[in-house]
Amino acid sequence: MLINDTIAAIATPAGSGAIAIIRLSGEDAIKIVDKVFFGKNKLITQDAYTIHFGNIKENNEIIDEVLVSIFKAPKSYTGENSVEISCHGSIYIQQKILNLLIKNGARTANPGEFTQRAFLNGKLDLSQAEAVADLISAESKAEHKVAIRQMRGGFTSDLQKLRTELLNFISLIELELDFSEEDVEFADRTQLKNLIANIKQKTEELIYSFEYGNVIKKGIPVAIVGEPNVGKSTLLNALLNEEKAIVSNIAGTTRDAVEDLMSINGILFRFIDTAGIRKTDDTIENLGIERTMQKIENAEIVLYMIDANDKNSCNKISEISEKLENKKLIVLINKIDKAKAQNDTCNDFKTIEVSAKFKQNISVLKDALTDAVQFSKIDKSGTIVTNTRHLELLQKAYDATLRVEDGLTSGLSSDFIAQDIREILNHIGEITGEYTNDEVLGNIFANFCIGK
Amino acid sequence: MLINDTIAAIATPAGSGAIAIIRLSGEDAIKIVDKVFFGKNKLITQDAYTIHFGNIKENNEIIDEVLVSIFKAPKSYTGENSVEISCHGSIYIQQKILNLLIKNGARTANPGEFTQRAFLNGKLDLSQAEAVADLISAESKAEHKVAIRQMRGGFTSDLQKLRTELLNFISLIELELDFSEEDVEFADRTQLKNLIANIKQKTEELIYSFEYGNVIKKGIPVAIVGEPNVGKSTLLNALLNEEKAIVSNIAGTTRDAVEDLMSINGILFRFIDTAGIRKTDDTIENLGIERTMQKIENAEIVLYMIDANDKNSCNKISEISEKLENKKLIVLINKIDKAKAQNDTCNDFKTIEVSAKFKQNISVLKDALTDAVQFSKIDKSGTIVTNTRHLELLQKAYDATLRVEDGLTSGLSSDFIAQDIREILNHIGEITGEYTNDEVLGNIFANFCIGK
Repeated sequence: MLINDTIAAIATPAGSGAIAIIRLSGEDAIKIVDKVFFGKNKLITQDAYTIHFGNIKENNEIIDEVLVSIFKAPKSYTGENSVEISCHGSIYIQQKILNLLIKNGARTANPGEFTQRAFLNGKLDLSQAEAVADLISAESKAEHKVAIRQMRGGFTSDLQKLRTELLNFISLIELELDFSEEDVEFADRTQLKNLIANIKQKTEELIYSFEYGNVIKKGIPVAIVGEPNVGKSTLLNALLNEEKAIVSNIAGTTRDAVEDLMSINGILFRFIDTAGIRKTDDTIENLGIERTMQKIENAEIVLYMIDANDKNSCNKISEISEKLENKKLIVLINKIDKAKAQNDTCNDFKTIEVSAKFKQNISVLKDALTDAVQFSKIDKSGTIVTNTRHLELLQKAYDATLRVEDGLTSGLSSDFIAQDIREILNHIGEITGEYTNDEVLGNIFANFCIGK
Repeated sequence: MLINDTIAAIATPAGSGAIAIIRLSGEDAIKIVDKVFFGKNKLITQDAYTIHFGNIKENNEIIDEVLVSIFKAPKSYTGENSVEISCHGSIYIQQKILNLLIKNGARTANPGEFTQRAFLNGKLDLSQAEAVADLISAESKAEHKVAIRQMRGGFTSDLQKLRTELLNFISLIELELDFSEEDVEFADRTQLKNLIANIKQKTEELIYSFEYGNVIKKGIPVAIVGEPNVGKSTLLNALLNEEKAIVSNIAGTTRDAVEDLMSINGILFRFIDTAGIRKTDDTIENLGIERTMQKIENAEIVLYMIDANDKNSCNKISEISEKLENKKLIVLINKIDKAKAQNDTCNDFKTIEVSAKFKQNISVLKDALTDAVQFSKIDKSGTIVTNTRHLELLQKAYDATLRVEDGLTSGLSSDFIAQDIREILNHIGEITGEYTNDEVLGNIFANFCIGK
């Protein structure tokens, strides 16, 4: 990986629009643009954080009228000299200018290379860099909140503080090892125990937060259980119509399952359709029911939809009651435009009466759905892990804290304890990128978009 | 149309990317951003053409870390106070910031409203404004060249000069009308005749250029004539593979025709597939052949593809010879990997031997295609009309010049001549927007993308 060359990329979304941005970073960024930019003054003579109007030319032929923004090391996103060229958003012009910059000494940036340079130049730690990608792909309020907090260092600052304290201890313990024949104890064992307990608790909390963080990222799974024609599609359309939110179909885990993503009150929900449940001898139908049960198991919320005309629907809920443990259940009585809800069997459950067709009480359902999510968790702890790489490292750090605790209790020799402490330090250090290797970096930044 | 309020829009292409730009223009643009932007200083105190780092916040919650660029009236694209907010390219963040600006006093911009304001504030004439939209949608070198020249005023500057001269004459002629009883002649009739002849010639040239300009915009139509299995798809793929260019399928004029657009050596070509030609009694097949003939008629270039194995293919060309008048004909002998070309019947024609499958001689074909286009026309005249609105106005102006010439020759009274001269002035003035109305403006800017 070369870090001394100058990289260039189109940074705005692909396609044509009013404006596009082409971004350069590297020692020669300003010099390279000066070769193709013709404005009032040479850019190299201009101050950082200034904007300049002029033409981009190739062989004296104007490619576009542009605005150029100048940033100078170290006060830029990457920490290097940087230029942003704001051109007309034609695909042709974007490509043409990028090619021209390449011809004049820049190199096409790899995915995430700008952020990678920001990391290598100490502008961001690794978990902050990872949060940049999360921030860009954030589609809901909750996801956005987690990502921006992580990008601003909220996620790792506590851990980092504990790690620094631990670093002091390890040097004391290593000092003890140098004097091992003299049986001295520089590191206060009680203080060390407390610190390890702190780290254990923090990592445990973070590990616990992952389950929730993951749900935020992928959408809260809501299994919709109900007979055909009970009004599922009409309901989803009614919700969609009110929200004007992002809705997409994502392929489910099973080949035939298609899931609908929808952001309601800023929280992403993943609606999962299921086959109807009833007792039957039909083998194929039983397979379908089995699958429904699996989907209920994977859901956080079960939306049990019934027809207001159907008097006995809620009886079936008891048949699956054991599957509903730890789930939020909402019984949705639909078609109240046609019939008065008269499902006596539903009295044991939280019910909401709606007419999906006439959009009655949809807002009540929306609030019930968002209430069912313990959204407060995010606000309170402020530490939500959403990244599997972080989870694995936290898990390893946590395991090592257990070993250190055991070792301290059983009076294990300092060199074993020191080894486990070093593991804790390394695993936490890997999260923020203090310990890392090219392969890990490569994997992380490969998932970025180009231009970031 | 309010011109005093502040408009805002996302200016970068739709979707998620590394960076997105949200743009504001209007008297309060900087003030509005100051309400939601938290950086080192209030933006209102800062110089034009400077960039500022900070946070966009709503209710003390950070939405994003952004860079803000400041422009002050009249030195901006629109001629008004303007701000560009460069944020992370998440769809969620883009929407969130735009909504926040709306809440704080901005209004969502209509399509093209930034450029419309630039026009109303005298930063661009109307034909230049129209060229901005063309520039953004330009997909080929030729299209881009025409659009950028028009945007920089190249298209109208000559006409504008002639119009100014004519304005002097009209005032002299109108003076004559005031003294009509005295039979004086202030305006030199010979000079007027020369000027009108100049304008006539210029408008005629421009009208003539439209046909070519239109072709540049829509792609040079190339009819591919050939039997099934002669290798058309393979050829198009081979060309595509070399060019890595924009290719799309656009629905043709007839329901069953799909056309392939491809930019070769910077020129956009529109490849039109046709049914095979042969003598037959089958009614339906004859219908297909009839349609082929129509397509040949609409083409500039006919690519007659034959199989190297087929000894008699070129005989069929003579059958359609009358359709080929005024067309460039290229006979493409394909599959030379399988058989030596031995089509004696083709000697009368310009032939190229290729193997589409093994990509042999594809570059020869590419050069032949671009040579067939009289590309020099663009470079020489520099005046290519691509806009039907301009064409209609030029046509009307031209017709009026004929009437003025007739009037001058036949000694028509000055008031009739003055009326026709005024028509010339108005029609030319409408092109640049000196004479215009809200409806015309509305139609023009409605075709822009939002944010431009």
